[in-house]
Parts: sequence; C-alpha cells; structure tokens
Amino acid sequence: MSKQKAIVLLSGGMDSTTLLYHLVAEGWEVEALSILYGQRHARELDFAKRLCERGQVTHTVCDLGVLSKVLGGSSQTDSTIPVPSGHYADPVMRITVVPNRNMILLAVAAAKAISVGCATVAYAAHVGDHAVYPDCRPEFILALQGALNLCHYDGGVGLLAPFSQMSKADIVKRGLQLHVPYYLTYSCYTGKEKSCGICGTCVERLQAFWAAGAEDPIQYEDRAYARTINP
Amino acid sequence: MSKQKAIVLLSGGMDSTTLLYHLVAEGWEVEALSILYGQRHARELDFAKRLCERGQVTHTVCDLGVLSKVLGGSSQTDSTIPVPSGHYADPVMRITVVPNRNMILLAVAAAKAISVGCATVAYAAHVGDHAVYPDCRPEFILALQGALNLCHYDGGVGLLAPFSQMSKADIVKRGLQLHVPYYLTYSCYTGKEKSCGICGTCVERLQAFWAAGAEDPIQYEDRAYARTINP
Repeated sequence: MSKQKAIVLLSGGMDSTTLLYHLVAEGWEVEALSILYGQRHARELDFAKRLCERGQVTHTVCDLGVLSKVLGGSSQTDSTIPVPSGHYADPVMRITVVPNRNMILLAVAAAKAISVGCATVAYAAHVGDHAVYPDCRPEFILALQGALNLCHYDGGVGLLAPFSQMSKADIVKRGLQLHVPYYLTYSCYTGKEKSCGICGTCVERLQAFWAAGAEDPIQYEDRAYARTINP
Repeated sequence: MSKQKAIVLLSGGMDSTTLLYHLVAEGWEVEALSILYGQRHARELDFAKRLCERGQVTHTVCDLGVLSKVLGGSSQTDSTIPVPSGHYADPVMRITVVPNRNMILLAVAAAKAISVGCATVAYAAHVGDHAVYPDCRPEFILALQGALNLCHYDGGVGLLAPFSQMSKADIVKRGLQLHVPYYLTYSCYTGKEKSCGICGTCVERLQAFWAAGAEDPIQYEDRAYARTINP
C-alpha cells in the first residue's frame, strides 16, 4: 500500500520545517507548499527552497504577493507599520496578525491537495501562537477541519495540526530528535539578513531553544534581549 | 447608526450581480471583490467592473491568476480540458469544479473585510449549484461560517449566502423586481465573446429566465439547445 500523502505548508521557519520532518518520520509522504502573500519576511521562502532541495522534497512556491493589497493593517504586510519587539503574548503583537492568513493558505493547500489527488493538508500551529493568532487556536482548527471535510466530494480534505497542543520548546525537542537542520530555517519578522533577536518570533524562538536545553544555531543581531523578556 | 457593510464576491455573472442589488435593497452598504484565479471565463470580470462603475460600487479586483498552477484538473482553469455541454446536474459537469475555489475566494474576502473593518462577506451560492459544486452546499456554508467566526478576534467574520435555498429562477425573479441590468452580466464557461448557450451555466441561465417568465437579454450563439435539455 502506498504511503498517505500530505501537502505541508512550509514557511521556511522552524515550526513548519520540524513539521515536515515529523510527518516523514511518522510515515507520511510529503509535498511542501510555500506561499508568498506579500510578507515582509519573504526571505523565509529562500530557506524553504534550500531545505526542500537538500531533503529532496517536492516543493511548490505560489506567488500570491498581490494579496498584500487586501491584507492591510499588519506589520507583516505593510512596510510602513513597524515590527514590534517583545513577547508574543503582549497585546502589542496583534499588529503582526495577517488577517485570515491561515485560512487563505490552508484553502490554497487544500486546492492543491485535491488537484494532485491527495487527501490531507498540514500546518504547524502551536500553543505559543494561541495568545495572539486566532487562526492558530484549537477551536479554529476544529472548525476549519469541518469546512475542509465538506469542500469537495468524498470527505473533502483532512487537516493535520499535530503541534497545536505543543509548545515551541516541545517542537525544538522533537526537531532535535529528528536532526532537523535548524541552521537552514529563518523566522525573523523583520526580514533582515541577520535575525534581529528582539521581534516576537525571534524572542520566542531563542527562548524555545533555551527551554529545550539547546542553543539556536542561526545568527542574531542581539541574542541577549530575549533573556530579559519573561517567557 | 451607519449601515452594516458587506464584502460581496462579484464574479460578473447573474447570481452575484443580483446578490449585490439584493443586499443594497436589504439595507447593506456593499463593496465588491472580484478575483482572478486563472479562470477560462475571465471575461466575466470586465462585466463586474462595468457593473460597479455604473452602480458606483467600490470594486477591488485581485489578480491571483497564478493559482491556476495549483488549481488543476478543471475545465475552468485548464484550457486543455474541454468545457462540457448539458445540464448542471449531469455528473459530467464535475470537470467544471475548480478545487476548493469558494473557500479560497471567501477566505480572501474575509481578509479584506477584516482589513477594512467590516464584519461580513457574502456570496451567491444557490440550489442549482448543489448537485455539482460541493462548496455551494448548505452544509459547507454552515461549516465555513463556523471557521470564519473564529478566524479573527471578536466573532471573526460573518458569512451571508441568502440565495443558498433559492433556485436560479427565484434569483432571476428577485433580480427583475430590483431592475438588475442583466445585459451587463456574463456567465458562459467558454469565455467566448458571445455566450455559447450549450455549456452548463448557459443552459441553467437560459432556463432560469424562462422559468421566471422572462427572456435573457444577453446574446447567445445557440438559444435553442437549452430547450432540448430537461430542466
């Protein structure tokens, strides 16, 4: 019997990269999909590409950059809005929310899944996202699963979000078990070549590695700031 | 108190055009959104544009044409697959289904709604679509409403589909009451300048006008074929 196949949303960051490795380890055949939606940190997709080349994973990049026109009001799609620094759970981080981003990305992933005759899509929402990102919360995942199941004939498309009850530190631990090449991932919201170390995603990432008893192998402009922020 | 505002998915066809008029008549403030997704019948968007200019409705066109790369297997996004003729309910019409199209379009509409501070999106699914289009069925609408309600803070985005229990003939009747300028709409799946009269959507449209006791004002290459198809 052939392996079950999943379309994995791969941003190039550490969560979705770990998800790709995790699903392969769980016996899934995977295909990666990366989507440009006008994000400030589009650099992440170069990392996704390199990662897939290295792992010989089929990878599609879909350039929907014009979406930035309808995705206003976020620091991640509007270059005039500064990226805030600090902790994800800080209400100031709401400015980083890209309106309905995950439904758009998962809807496109499901379309691709149907087109290639595969019944599953996957994304890497995790517990750390819940405080600020509505479209990473378990209740959203459950509701969207319901809609995806009905979007096409014969049960539609399944939605996997195996990290939705895991912390980012748990993800790092799982990734280290799987020898995920974290030096080939990129997360910083600023999109700068060298990760800033002070935006919400840099702080969360650095702290996740520390909580997992490890050190993040990528370079940071400021590796000390995250020590000053309450996890 | 200011009127409630809805983002209306406007294809340029008769259903969504009627929906726009219907919502205005029901007291909504409307803004139209048309999306290119690589459809063969992209000509419909010229009609949407003209309609909105005429009605002084704010109109955004979002060109996601590159989606055709991930929306394979449909006669409407793959020019090598012929458009079938006949009745919508014929299983052969399944080839016209664009994978997960409506979830993508509604997800983008919801993103726009959030960006402009509006709480509602609307689309024109109707009973005639149910036989072939999974993403027009009441159970899909209900499930997607659930996901949209959770996609953002404070109740997310509402989904209106007021025609979901109406036949296309009922839509024509409503439209005629509202003096919808149907000569400014386009529905044909072939995308030809003159509507073919034999594709599923032409047949359904012609029959809907007849069932409403009217004649479709647009030009057809063949207006007789639809008479030979059992409604």
